[in-house]
Formats: sequence, C-alpha cells, structure tokens
Amino acid sequence: MSSTPFDLNRVVELLVRVRETKPLVQNITNYVVMTLSANVLLALDASPAMVHAAEEVEDFVGLSSALVINIGTLSPTWVEGMQRAAARAVALGKPWVLDPVGCGATPYRTGVAAELARARPTIIRGNASEILSLAGAASAGGKGVDSTASSRQALAAAGELAKTTGAVVAVTGVIDYATDGSSVIAVESGDALMTRSTGLGCALSAATAAFASVAPPLEAAAAALTVYGAAGKHAAEKCRGPGSLPAELCDALYALDGTLLRRHAVVSVHEQPAAL
Amino acid sequence: MSSTPFDLNRVVELLVRVRETKPLVQNITNYVVMTLSANVLLALDASPAMVHAAEEVEDFVGLSSALVINIGTLSPTWVEGMQRAAARAVALGKPWVLDPVGCGATPYRTGVAAELARARPTIIRGNASEILSLAGAASAGGKGVDSTASSRQALAAAGELAKTTGAVVAVTGVIDYATDGSSVIAVESGDALMTRSTGLGCALSAATAAFASVAPPLEAAAAALTVYGAAGKHAAEKCRGPGSLPAELCDALYALDGTLLRRHAVVSVHEQPAAL
Amino acid sequence: MSSTPFDLNRVVELLVRVRETKPLVQNITNYVVMTLSANVLLALDASPAMVHAAEEVEDFVGLSSALVINIGTLSPTWVEGMQRAAARAVALGKPWVLDPVGCGATPYRTGVAAELARARPTIIRGNASEILSLAGAASAGGKGVDSTASSRQALAAAGELAKTTGAVVAVTGVIDYATDGSSVIAVESGDALMTRSTGLGCALSAATAAFASVAPPLEAAAAALTVYGAAGKHAAEKCRGPGSLPAELCDALYALDGTLLRRHAVVSVHEQPAAL
Repeated sequence: MSSTPFDLNRVVELLVRVRETKPLVQNITNYVVMTLSANVLLALDASPAMVHAAEEVEDFVGLSSALVINIGTLSPTWVEGMQRAAARAVALGKPWVLDPVGCGATPYRTGVAAELARARPTIIRGNASEILSLAGAASAGGKGVDSTASSRQALAAAGELAKTTGAVVAVTGVIDYATDGSSVIAVESGDALMTRSTGLGCALSAATAAFASVAPPLEAAAAALTVYGAAGKHAAEKCRGPGSLPAELCDALYALDGTLLRRHAVVSVHEQPAAL
Repeated sequence: MSSTPFDLNRVVELLVRVRETKPLVQNITNYVVMTLSANVLLALDASPAMVHAAEEVEDFVGLSSALVINIGTLSPTWVEGMQRAAARAVALGKPWVLDPVGCGATPYRTGVAAELARARPTIIRGNASEILSLAGAASAGGKGVDSTASSRQALAAAGELAKTTGAVVAVTGVIDYATDGSSVIAVESGDALMTRSTGLGCALSAATAAFASVAPPLEAAAAALTVYGAAGKHAAEKCRGPGSLPAELCDALYALDGTLLRRHAVVSVHEQPAAL
Repeated sequence: MSSTPFDLNRVVELLVRVRETKPLVQNITNYVVMTLSANVLLALDASPAMVHAAEEVEDFVGLSSALVINIGTLSPTWVEGMQRAAARAVALGKPWVLDPVGCGATPYRTGVAAELARARPTIIRGNASEILSLAGAASAGGKGVDSTASSRQALAAAGELAKTTGAVVAVTGVIDYATDGSSVIAVESGDALMTRSTGLGCALSAATAAFASVAPPLEAAAAALTVYGAAGKHAAEKCRGPGSLPAELCDALYALDGTLLRRHAVVSVHEQPAAL
C-alpha cells in the first residue's frame, strides 16, 4: 500500500486517473456478463475488449493496460487462452484480476480456479463462498454461483489466500473487504438489490482491472469496491427493481463524483484478523 | 396434474413456493438470452447458473433443482454437454425443460432437437412453428427462429408430442397452452410487444424450469406461462417500446403479486382436442 | 447507386420497405453484442437469427435475406462457419455485411479480417482504425476495438478498400460515410454518447444487413447509417446516461418516422476524394 492514507479523497483521485488514462482492459470472461462488463468499463471511460482465443490472447495482452480472467462459463478451449494470457501478463508486468466464479461447485471448476490462482494474479475478487473454497476452507457452502456465507466469515480465509498467492483478495458481500494479508480495507456501500441482477460481481471484477492499471493492488481493489458500491447504492435508490438496475448502475458510474461517493460509501482501514 | 384445481390462487401459491425455495436452475442455453434468462430467474428469487461444459455438467446437475436446455446457438461441443446433462437429470429424477429454438430451420437443428426430445424432458416449451416441426408436422412454416403459425394451430400437434415424449408441452403465442396430452391449460395474458424484444420465449423456458422444481409438470408449465405473461403484459403497458421492455419485465416479475396477476391473466382448463 | 436521388425521403422509403418485408437476418457475430443486435433488428421489424455452427450455417443462409459476419470474439471454429456462410451467400446472390472488429489489433485478427474482405462482402462497416487497417494503411492507430482516428481521416482508405474489394465501405465516427469508391454519402447524426455503450457499431452492422436486403449496397449502407444515427441522437437526448442508451435506441428505432428522421439527420452526396 502506498504511503498516502486510503480514504474517499484517494478514491476520487483514482477514479479521475482511470477517466484520464482510459485504460484498455482485456476481458476473458463469461458469456452472461460480457455486455455488462463492457458497459461498466465504458461508463468509467475505460476501453474494454473481449479477446479470448489462444491464437491472439498473448498478442492482445501486449496492447492492454490490464486483464481480467473470469471462469463463469468454463470450457477447455477457453482455459488454454486464460492460462496463456495470465502468463503473458505476469511476464510483461501487467496487472491481472482473477474472478473464480462458482469455485467449489464442481471439481473441474475448482481445479481450474486453483490453477489460475497459482498463476500470480494481482487481485482475486469473489464472493464469500468462492473465496472460502479457493482458500481451501473445509466447508465453503456455495450454492452454484451465489454465496451462502457472509463476507465477514470469509475474511480470515481471504487473508490466508492473499498470503499464499501473493494477490490482494477482495471479498464482496454486505460489507466488502480488500486485504493483502496484513491490512484490510472495509467498504460499506452497495445494496442487497445488487444480488438480484446478474453479473454485477463479475462486472466489478472488470472495473477492478481498470483501477489496477492506475494504482497499487490493495488501493486499486478498494477503490473499485468503493466506486462500484457507491454507484450501485445510488442506482438501487433510483431504479424501480432489479431489471432497471444495470442501466442505472452504468449511468451512476458515468456521473459519479466526490459528492455522490461521499453520500453512498464509507471506507475504513483495519489490521488483518488472524485465521479463526 | 394434482387434485388441486388449477386457478390463479394456485399460481400465486406456486410463485410463493419458488420465492421461498430459491431453486438453483442450471441453464445450458444460447448466447443471446443468457443474461436475460439469469435476470428473469433472479427476479423470481431463483438462483441461475450457466454451466455447459461436458467436463462439469453432470456434477452440476447434481447440485441443481432443475435444468433447462435451449438449442438457440448450437454447436457440436455444446450438444455433448446437453446430452450428458439431460441424461443425468433423468437419472437423478430432476426436472428438465427443452426449448427447441428454431427447430425445423435446418436439418442439423431439427435432428438435435428430435434427439433431445427423446431424452425424456419433463417439459418442452416452444413457439407454434417449433412445436409443429418437432411433432413431425408436414409443414411447420417456421421463419428462422420466429413462428409463422399460431399457437392454436399447433395445439393438436402439441398433444401428440406430449403423448410420444411423455413431456408436458407448452406452446406460446397470442394464447399460451400447456398440455399433457389429455388436459390443456390455456393462458390469456402477455402482449404482442413481447415478440419485438429478443429472448423472451427463451427466458420463459428458464422460468418454467424454476416452477418445475416446485410443482408437477402441467401445473409448473401453466404457472410459469401465467406469471410470465402477466408480468409481460404489465411491463408492456408501462414501457416506452421494445427496448425498455426486458427491464420492465424483470421489475414486474420481482414485484408480482396476486392483484397484478389477476389484473393481467386469465387461465382456463380444457380437454385436449383431437388431432386435426 | 440507383437513379433515385439519395435523400431523407429515400431513407424513409427504405425504412418502410424493411418493416414491410421483415427480412430474416442471419448473424454470425460476437458474444458481447448478440442481444443488442437482435433487439435492434426486432425494433426495425426484421427477424434476427444467430446461427454460426459449420454444421448448419450454409443451410441457414438459404433461408436468410441477408447475413452479417462480425469478428469481435474470434476463434478458429467460428472462422470456419464465417467462411462457409460468406461463400454460400455469394453463391446464392444474397447480400452480406462484414464488420472487421478490432482489425489491426493482432496479426490473427487482421489476417481473418483480410481473408473475409476477399470473400466478396456486399458492405464493410467499421470504425476509422479498422478501415485504415483493413485497407492496409501504414499506421492504423487502433486501440483495441475503439478507434483513435477520425472517420474523415479514413475516407480515402475507405474508397481504396471499396475499389479493391468491390464492397461498399461504411466508416463511422463523428460524421459517418458510405462510399463505393466513386460516390460518398455523408451522414451527420448520432451522438458522442454512443461510443460509451458497447456494441452500438456492431448492432449498426446488423441493421445494415437488413437494409441490404431491400436496396442496392450504397443506398442500403447510407440508409442504415441515417436511420441508426437519427435514432441514436434521439435516444441520447432522452436517456440519462450510457446505461439507459441501448434501450432508448431500440425504442427510438421502433418509433422512428420521417419527422424524427428529419429532426436528427442530415445527408449529403459527394464525390470520392482521392487518396491522400
């Protein structure tokens, strides 16, 4: 973490930096969330590209500012592209974000997630069940791709996962946490309605990659959680239901400023709690 | 069909049961409708998962409450996952819904649909052209994936298809029908605007799978038609055009109660008419 | 170009013709934009179908009125379907539109685009960077899939590309151009907000295919640019941000008439400028 204290002023600063640098974010992500992920990145003034084929992923990593790999709709040909892209990102020193969707649901999925977690991601972003499973917790309690555990319950596992992988780990839930294994940033924002519209967590991972191109990992993860959670809370207040939430979320990300951010988000910095 | 008479009270009861049980619905569906299908399921408080790879479909069926297989964007590797998932669902006694998108358009598509129809689906949901084609009617009159026949014209074929496959067959159109080959439930609701926004039929098939996890097939199919049609009619009244319809539909599904259901839907039970 | 002068009256005439003939438009397109492309076509009263597998693409071309091939999310198995479909469309005398998404970004992508450009597309639609790259310009200046050059800068290259491929070339940007290598139609409409929501260019290519089924290529390309740009400008005025833009765009396409078209678009016909 940088020596600058992490607070909402710092988040605004990083948001402005994303908007100014317009990072090209490469997405190897699942079919369900591609459109929303692209729209979230465009709303932040980043430039999204969905490029996954083994024939071109490595070349494209060379052009990108950051990469996100999301295993939502896995299949073997895609996994090859994911592994090549991750290796190239590490080789080039570019940040990459792993979203281990549904980790724990099937042996195949858990195996792919664990292998990617060993490929030196910069940030891992998941819900509590996914992080518990990826950290090897005995009973992860996932239900398909939705979590049955709380983010607080996964915080110790997140810290362990950060230590074993070298990645910053972000766990989302009622309260969102980002940890590097020693410091934890807690973000209070968002709204329960966000769990009733598909892919909002996945699109957050894409936004996290944009922030990872302009800041150190812990700050990037926490800034993305804060910006996204504040926009989501604002959108949830304005929309009529979960159907109209994604459009409102992108509109809110597009319009977000320091005033809205302060109205909708609280951040605090803590020490990593020990494993339970 | 259960001994309870099928009416709007029963539909409300089943809607509540879906919301309470939050079924995990596995979708092997086409790229175009994945996002909407997930959002429709989440609006109903079901938990959607899009999992199609042969490497994990069978394991995932073991976790799921119901499965939907939709052949909209076919390719051979996907067909393998579809067949494995269907067989596992039958082996485990879990309900599965077949949506034979575009059946009749090409020999490949018709062949895959026919093979899946023999794999003991619990419910088959399609438009009139698709059901006529799948039932082997001489001249199905499909136009790509849109129907050129009316649901009434396909009702006799639907009854035959129900008898040959053992599935309940739901045919959607101006009036929607669900038949097990002896009883027919007719649902009047919905709006013509629903044909001007993509994937609403496919997302209905996903909703049908959710209901199939809480009720016998004929009731499940009819309840899904009713809930979805009522929400669609409400959404069509509120939206400004087909672009804003999907968001309004999910908002309506989220907010739906007995009052809205009774305002927007009429159901009636009939005997299956003989083949023409 | 037909002997009818190209003006907004002609655009209205072609829009009516699309609505009356309801062309079946086959899309082999990228995952990100499938839903929006289908919704744009449905808003125009065309009938979209997303069919890409080598096992059925040729049969489906036989049913279709027009075809669009978009290389946004490339992979080798899809490329086989693209090539077969293009060849069949040419053999059957059906119009097809090439959208060379991200051409210039990687050697693989550029190679596939160049090969498809030699397969006799009726219309090629891209942003300035893509057209410059496809025309073989030394420095195309693409940034992933977004353009860093202006459409005016690509106009000479577009004319050259039209001559070498025999296709009409449409370049979109602040001003949109369609050229057959001798005449240029310039369209002023649209809004900068359209670059902040994903896939609007790709869905325009799908709309272009619908118009190509009812008019000669230069008129078809220009009419699509005009209708789409006018609807986009109208939508940008009505929406709250980029998140709500796509729904407003489809609503505007659905409602578009001569009055709205004249309020939001200006067209003019010019001679093709020489290469710089």
